Amino acid sequence: MNYTHEHRMERIASVVEMDDADALSVHGSSSTIKVSAKSRSTAVAGAIAAVIREQKHAEVQAIGAGAVNQAVKALAIARGYLLDDTPPVDIVCTPYFTDVDIEGQERTAVRFIVEPRSSI
Amino acid sequence: MNYTHEHRMERIASVVEMDDADALSVHGSSSTIKVSAKSRSTAVAGAIAAVIREQKHAEVQAIGAGAVNQAVKALAIARGYLLDDTPPVDIVCTPYFTDVDIEGQERTAVRFIVEPRSSI
Repeated sequence: MNYTHEHRMERIASVVEMDDADALSVHGSSSTIKVSAKSRSTAVAGAIAAVIREQKHAEVQAIGAGAVNQAVKALAIARGYLLDDTPPVDIVCTPYFTDVDIEGQERTAVRFIVEPRSSI
Repeated sequence: MNYTHEHRMERIASVVEMDDADALSVHGSSSTIKVSAKSRSTAVAGAIAAVIREQKHAEVQAIGAGAVNQAVKALAIARGYLLDDTPPVDIVCTPYFTDVDIEGQERTAVRFIVEPRSSI
């Protein structure tokens, strides 16, 4: 089948959201993976790996200690998935703060830029 | 003064441990910065920046969601500190799991390898 880029991203999103629909969303245009404290780290890891394979760049966003912990676990797991690829892809991440609007309230989120090590 | 490497690392450790003696320790030989949920993220960030300036490589270890959150906040803050250096140093990190022995019990820790982006 001849998927367009958008279609492929939607497939990834739908696979991930089956596991935890409220907690995780993948936006094809911006590659932002939003993680909550309830997100399954393996599901998030799968999403990160898929976006990296597709776009060579992903952003992971978490608000609060529980969400940040799940995001970091997912990053460590995703690194393992991608190291198993042929050829292996080693990822590195860059954490930074950003202010986001959650239902009219400003919250500080932690975001991770995720990139293949070889590309930086 | 002509500090040896070990002496300089001890100075860094003593500065950081003043703020939170139980929660954070810097080992000169291995550059491992241990973070707890009670660690002050700015103090940890100062330690990370100091070790990176000194050794171009640091490892940050955290066990539990609260500690991982403090570690990530510290990494984001340290990145800001190091980007303000002349010349600026941009750091990236690589999270991975490791098993550690805490008072006879095996726990899974999250560790972050921290490196200047330019060196990888």
